[in-house]
Amino acid sequence: MSAELLSSLASVLPADRIASDPESLLVYGYDGASGVTGRPDVVVSVQEEAEIVATLRVAESLRVPVFPRGAATGLAGGSVPSCGIVLNLAPMCRIIEIDTANLMATVEPGVINADLQAAVEAVGLFYPPDPASLKQSTIGGNVATGAGGPRCLKYGTTREYVRGIRAVLPGGQVVEDGGKYLKCATGYNLSQLFVGSEGTLGAISRITLRLLPRPPAVGSVVALFASLDSAAAMVERLLADGILPCVMEFMDRLCIECVEKAYHLGLAPEAEALVLIEADGTPEAVESECRRIAQICEEGGAFNVRRASDAGTRADLWRARRAVSPSLSRLRPARLGEDISLPRASIVSIVAEIRRIAAKHNLLIPVFGHIGDGNLHPNILYDPRDPEETRRVHIAAEELIRAAVAAGGTLSGEHGIGIAKRDLLPLALPELNQSLCKQIKQVFDPHNLMNPGKIFP
Amino acid sequence: MSAELLSSLASVLPADRIASDPESLLVYGYDGASGVTGRPDVVVSVQEEAEIVATLRVAESLRVPVFPRGAATGLAGGSVPSCGIVLNLAPMCRIIEIDTANLMATVEPGVINADLQAAVEAVGLFYPPDPASLKQSTIGGNVATGAGGPRCLKYGTTREYVRGIRAVLPGGQVVEDGGKYLKCATGYNLSQLFVGSEGTLGAISRITLRLLPRPPAVGSVVALFASLDSAAAMVERLLADGILPCVMEFMDRLCIECVEKAYHLGLAPEAEALVLIEADGTPEAVESECRRIAQICEEGGAFNVRRASDAGTRADLWRARRAVSPSLSRLRPARLGEDISLPRASIVSIVAEIRRIAAKHNLLIPVFGHIGDGNLHPNILYDPRDPEETRRVHIAAEELIRAAVAAGGTLSGEHGIGIAKRDLLPLALPELNQSLCKQIKQVFDPHNLMNPGKIFP
Repeated sequence: MSAELLSSLASVLPADRIASDPESLLVYGYDGASGVTGRPDVVVSVQEEAEIVATLRVAESLRVPVFPRGAATGLAGGSVPSCGIVLNLAPMCRIIEIDTANLMATVEPGVINADLQAAVEAVGLFYPPDPASLKQSTIGGNVATGAGGPRCLKYGTTREYVRGIRAVLPGGQVVEDGGKYLKCATGYNLSQLFVGSEGTLGAISRITLRLLPRPPAVGSVVALFASLDSAAAMVERLLADGILPCVMEFMDRLCIECVEKAYHLGLAPEAEALVLIEADGTPEAVESECRRIAQICEEGGAFNVRRASDAGTRADLWRARRAVSPSLSRLRPARLGEDISLPRASIVSIVAEIRRIAAKHNLLIPVFGHIGDGNLHPNILYDPRDPEETRRVHIAAEELIRAAVAAGGTLSGEHGIGIAKRDLLPLALPELNQSLCKQIKQVFDPHNLMNPGKIFP
Repeated sequence: MSAELLSSLASVLPADRIASDPESLLVYGYDGASGVTGRPDVVVSVQEEAEIVATLRVAESLRVPVFPRGAATGLAGGSVPSCGIVLNLAPMCRIIEIDTANLMATVEPGVINADLQAAVEAVGLFYPPDPASLKQSTIGGNVATGAGGPRCLKYGTTREYVRGIRAVLPGGQVVEDGGKYLKCATGYNLSQLFVGSEGTLGAISRITLRLLPRPPAVGSVVALFASLDSAAAMVERLLADGILPCVMEFMDRLCIECVEKAYHLGLAPEAEALVLIEADGTPEAVESECRRIAQICEEGGAFNVRRASDAGTRADLWRARRAVSPSLSRLRPARLGEDISLPRASIVSIVAEIRRIAAKHNLLIPVFGHIGDGNLHPNILYDPRDPEETRRVHIAAEELIRAAVAAGGTLSGEHGIGIAKRDLLPLALPELNQSLCKQIKQVFDPHNLMNPGKIFP
């Protein structure tokens, strides 16, 4: 089977696109942080759409599964293969066009998010979606997972920017939907269906993205709060005041302690919450909004309120938030990162619930995330060499998801389900919804060849 | 058949929900402006979800088509029945909740858009989608067509605000997707699939919508231009300047002439384009943006540049734009309203093309619409009592759609396809896309009972 697969691929692709040496099969067998691993039979690194078509034709004729992959920075194992073909789209990394008149970019799936941001900012434009992985992750992967990021509160996630998709379906047919227009009421929106489909419907070969004018100024405010309640109350006051910040990030006491231990930034140990808020727009608007934000923070009992509008001081204010992830790794060797998405007003109660779960199972669960849009990342820290602790981690994770769903939330806000969260899907998605989704997948992929084993239990 | 249908419905619904008198069958047989008419066997006016369920169960067991309907203000015949059951959702018009802490509204499908806007504004919040029909049209209908409106450029269409859907599927199963959270990467986004599906997948029974803080100030600028080129160049300069207005409306010379003839507003007859721009935000930001907008208009050759930030003067500035639709009716008794959506930079060339088509077929085709987001409404005026002119109208309409698609655009931006644009769908949507859409419909509606005969030729 594997020999037939290799010879079939070799007959339709240049030789240097195909790799089946043990090293390649190893390095294309895992992702960024899910801990899930697998082993493909072959890695196909494509350089253009016609090569995706050729690969998917071979895959269908031999009924071999295909696992599309960008930079594999995913946190849920969405790109990890279990067998078959890894379809490596990373070499397809051309920015085909930045259309300044129409404020649209057309890109191949392998373009790195940060590369696109830099390219559009160089011509005065703005691509808002900014997942934490932006320096490594690809636009194709961002689309596949529906990636978000801190700027989601004001600007929405990747979904809001996708205006058109070209994708190769299993068997090699190319579907093109949408285009360089903002509004479409012409049939079901297939482009939107591809967003968040995690590579299970087809392989995206081209993406048309909406751009915005680049806001001329950005300002940041950082504030510490003695209780999570007062931080959450401040967020509500701010929104009630008619202010829609572009960023409202949050880290809890455990994160603050970790960061302080690792980096000595002088954060007050009595703080229960650090909140980082950003506003963007014209310099005058940013100045007046940041002043008002700082005032509302202070009226809400914040201490150590600092604000900045120059890049240097802003980077200083971001240091604590950016230090969370690396500092947590110093505390315990491994972590299970959750991605719950909640009604914003449930944040105080869910953090209390997470603390109860952590205490009950004797685990460390620091919480950080996007307090403005209700998307939290509780990280369950553990040592994978300790099987008893690892067992407790999975019990705690399930209790945590149950608590999020009971609070009106859902399993994943921006990471996707992949393999890592697959078996928890029924906690968040009723049987009927799962069945409809699986039947939709069948429409695109009748032989279940595209990224099988993902999303659905 | 009709007797069995009536008795089956009568056995599961209160008597006053069911109407089959000739007057009811007549008044529920047409819509706002498509000119398409039909005749149902029965009209069921439901007051709660359980009654939708009961109706769809009867419909499936007898294999009777169901035509869901809100206020029937649609422009494409999307709600017009050809037989079977009109499912009138207008009586389900409760605003179930305005959740000020989570900035979410939960509504029944029959809530009038303007009623929701007023209710959320009363508590300092904002629901941006504002189709021209907003005083009559329902949120359910807005979702079904993916309705837009002038504020789309900055705020997006209805799609961007839908966070959750409850819908009754054919046969009576209730599916619930999404909720009061902003981000979701948990399976395919079924809520988004319902947006723009024009009642062909199921009957929406409840909608969860994102709200925003209400911008404290709004300002308007109106400017006249001696050429469409200079108006379009001004739009690009504005966006390149980092300004994202919430509204950029446009009307061409023919609209200006019509409005002037009908209402004598003192518009200069030498103007080729009237542009209305609005900015919203803090009072300081609005003041500085409107000053800058007026300056860019003047630098771009505009004359009669006026601006206003108080409600009274703003209403004055809106008079000309609001007068377009009624004044066109004075010119000719009927019109075919198009809804093409284009890459914004194609507007100048498409308007020139529309003028060529109008001259060629000796027709009047005034153009107005949303210059900021590339969604134009060319209205082909005619007298339906003149069969020869009516024939030319349809030839011109097809040429117009072909020109829009050739310019990278699509058939409908915010009205939907319904019946009126159904046969033109293949001009905009390839066979493969149509086939995928139809197969997706089959997943939800295997017996083709939900709004059959719509969207697909």
